Amino acid sequence: MMRGLSWVWPAVLLMLVLVGGAASEGSIAGSTSRYVRRLAESVDLPYDSPYFAVPNGINPPQQVHLTQGDYDGRAVIVSYVTVKLSKPKVRYGKTEGDHPWQAKGYTTQYKFYNYTSGYIHHVIISNLEYDTKYFYKVGTEEEGAREFFFTTPPAPGPDAPYTFGVIGDLGQTFDSADTLEHYLQSYGQTMLFLGDLAYQDNYPLHYQVRFDTWSRFVERSAAYQPFIWTTGNHELDYVPEIGETVPFKPFNHRFPTPYWASNSTSPQWYSIRRGPATIIVLSSYSAYGKYTPQYVFLLAALKAVDRKVTPWLIILVHSPWYNSYNYHYMEGETMRVIFEPFIVAAKVDVVFAGHVHAYERSFPVSNIKYNITNGICTPQIDPSAPTYITIGDGGNIEGLAANYTEPQPSYSAFREASFGHGLFDIKNKTTAVWTWHRNQDGEAVSADSVVILNKVHS
Amino acid sequence: MMRGLSWVWPAVLLMLVLVGGAASEGSIAGSTSRYVRRLAESVDLPYDSPYFAVPNGINPPQQVHLTQGDYDGRAVIVSYVTVKLSKPKVRYGKTEGDHPWQAKGYTTQYKFYNYTSGYIHHVIISNLEYDTKYFYKVGTEEEGAREFFFTTPPAPGPDAPYTFGVIGDLGQTFDSADTLEHYLQSYGQTMLFLGDLAYQDNYPLHYQVRFDTWSRFVERSAAYQPFIWTTGNHELDYVPEIGETVPFKPFNHRFPTPYWASNSTSPQWYSIRRGPATIIVLSSYSAYGKYTPQYVFLLAALKAVDRKVTPWLIILVHSPWYNSYNYHYMEGETMRVIFEPFIVAAKVDVVFAGHVHAYERSFPVSNIKYNITNGICTPQIDPSAPTYITIGDGGNIEGLAANYTEPQPSYSAFREASFGHGLFDIKNKTTAVWTWHRNQDGEAVSADSVVILNKVHS
Repeated sequence: MMRGLSWVWPAVLLMLVLVGGAASEGSIAGSTSRYVRRLAESVDLPYDSPYFAVPNGINPPQQVHLTQGDYDGRAVIVSYVTVKLSKPKVRYGKTEGDHPWQAKGYTTQYKFYNYTSGYIHHVIISNLEYDTKYFYKVGTEEEGAREFFFTTPPAPGPDAPYTFGVIGDLGQTFDSADTLEHYLQSYGQTMLFLGDLAYQDNYPLHYQVRFDTWSRFVERSAAYQPFIWTTGNHELDYVPEIGETVPFKPFNHRFPTPYWASNSTSPQWYSIRRGPATIIVLSSYSAYGKYTPQYVFLLAALKAVDRKVTPWLIILVHSPWYNSYNYHYMEGETMRVIFEPFIVAAKVDVVFAGHVHAYERSFPVSNIKYNITNGICTPQIDPSAPTYITIGDGGNIEGLAANYTEPQPSYSAFREASFGHGLFDIKNKTTAVWTWHRNQDGEAVSADSVVILNKVHS
Repeated sequence: MMRGLSWVWPAVLLMLVLVGGAASEGSIAGSTSRYVRRLAESVDLPYDSPYFAVPNGINPPQQVHLTQGDYDGRAVIVSYVTVKLSKPKVRYGKTEGDHPWQAKGYTTQYKFYNYTSGYIHHVIISNLEYDTKYFYKVGTEEEGAREFFFTTPPAPGPDAPYTFGVIGDLGQTFDSADTLEHYLQSYGQTMLFLGDLAYQDNYPLHYQVRFDTWSRFVERSAAYQPFIWTTGNHELDYVPEIGETVPFKPFNHRFPTPYWASNSTSPQWYSIRRGPATIIVLSSYSAYGKYTPQYVFLLAALKAVDRKVTPWLIILVHSPWYNSYNYHYMEGETMRVIFEPFIVAAKVDVVFAGHVHAYERSFPVSNIKYNITNGICTPQIDPSAPTYITIGDGGNIEGLAANYTEPQPSYSAFREASFGHGLFDIKNKTTAVWTWHRNQDGEAVSADSVVILNKVHS
């Protein structure tokens, strides 16, 4: 699994830390990284990779992953799969090896053409205490029980520091493994996942076994902290020619989201509060025209935000609205033109997107003055507007997007075609530090970093 | 029901025919009609209106309506409702009163909060001869049988003249009745209906009884010629606060579309061929981002068009892409920016839209050169681009959109805030005549007319 780590010149690395890391929100000229990553073919890890190992036991729980289970962070959804039927329940407690409490859940299963999934269990643990470490056990002793742990967030409030990890378009290649291993060395407390998980749809018949391998692969992180899921195009699994016509069917069976807790009616869009942040998740591949459920939801979700309680307002969406790579250029326009005015009016701090397999950070920009006849259609620096960060560089089988539009557009602050992950480190209600970590560097190094000041409290 | 017909000065009328009717596709300056319609409150017809009368009989078929039942026009779907359970079947033949053949169908029913629909029957009659008049009978003699008739279209081909009626946003007011009565006097052979049917959702709890009254109201036209249905926002019926969270549920139960015949997987988007035209129906309120089912469908549908067989290519969509009324201004942008390049490349002849409760015709324009950074974002006259016609002026309860953006934008050729309907009269493979008929005039008069030359064959 070291194969994906390129050999780098220490001198070049140092230079890039200085150049890339020097960018700040106040800059007026963007930069394109001079770092040249070796472009190798991205190859999926083989089926017998240790990353995909099935745990020991008669009917062991596998593919364990967590997500937030309510609006405010006092609940967790524990999901796992068993090959044979098993009762969906989780035991938990505050001491390692001691699990006095129990929560029950439900079990689902799906067919996809000639594939039948395992038994997929979802258990909600509710009424947890804030800021508390819990140990939990899935499975029975007879079948092969496994223990994990997680820490609940602080109560929603303005003075709680919190660090979100950010990954998009992860896949399950050697590069994906590098990205996840790097993230495991970080201090990220909750993962904001920007869509495109397993890339099972790049296999014939959208081979769903690759969803199983992927879920075993990410367990090393996702069983210990919640992943906040965004839906990407690779979750559509829309294959009418083999009779699979319900978008997101496998994803929705496997990866529940707490959409009901924010009065959403679809797993594809929802919002949560976690510590100092409200996070709104949008779906690039659902309807968003005026009057549609997602449109109605977004307006209500923005209205519900109380920046006194959660000073930070973050949007997650798969397809970026500001992107200067040739890859997927302007694909996000259709959603941008309808949602951007609301986002700017709400003083959203950051919009994270994936989809483009590279890294890019914008200046705070907006492009909302266009009225068809006035000719005003160029993105402008706008202190009320969010910073847009594209980070679809998790490391998937499709490889990097290495072609930039030239010259670098004025909205683009920094861009580089490397794999990596990010950390959004909220220090307090006025200040957050964003760092992007490329896989070729040690985790302590950031290839791009910027201080982001809160749009309401600074 | 004469209440909606305003009193007009013959002299003003004559002037408008001359002014409005003089506009042609070659014009470079648009005009806003000086016709001032009396703006009265739009009121729904009362429940005991003769337009809503239930037919005689023990369990008579009611709400009879037709739509095309296949890709090429050799099949018809007959839909009707009975209050008591009844076998879904239709008898038909080529002679009045003689119905030697029989087709069977299926029955559906839906609940919407505290409303339960009647038994809704859908029967497909297939393998019809082209260009042939058929008489059909629904219901049994004992229950109260009723006879209607329809004429099949000519086989898809370049030399078949054909006239489409065009109505949007009809509703069930006194004005709606005027519109439909006018249309009944026309020579329209098939109705292109642009969405927003009954406006049941303007009643508390989206009172579905108004869908029943509407379907009885339009029977006088829809039982005799197919209505090609587009879905509008008033068909969403999305009311999560009363547990109704499935968009389009009532519409989809009541108004089938032949979506499967064009390899669509949703009733909300599909295409058909009818005589000299291919008609592609799009949904403003479903997903249309890249990779989504509707996006995939549109590209395939455009690719499948053979202009040698069907010289005319027509798009139906509810929310207009070019609209210069203040009402719903720019709502169509989100779909325009993603679909317009394909539409222009395919040399679509006309795009019909509803939604805005007024009439407007554009010049052939496009706005597809924008690339974020070049500042080119103003609609331009483009001979390859379609004519956009907004005709959401059927006459519904929400009343007219009477506020124009000023000055009239360069893309707008003619606009007037009156209720009415249109006729798209295809003469041959090179020429069609479009006329718009306002309700205040006799059917023979057109308040706007233009010769539209085929984009491929002229």
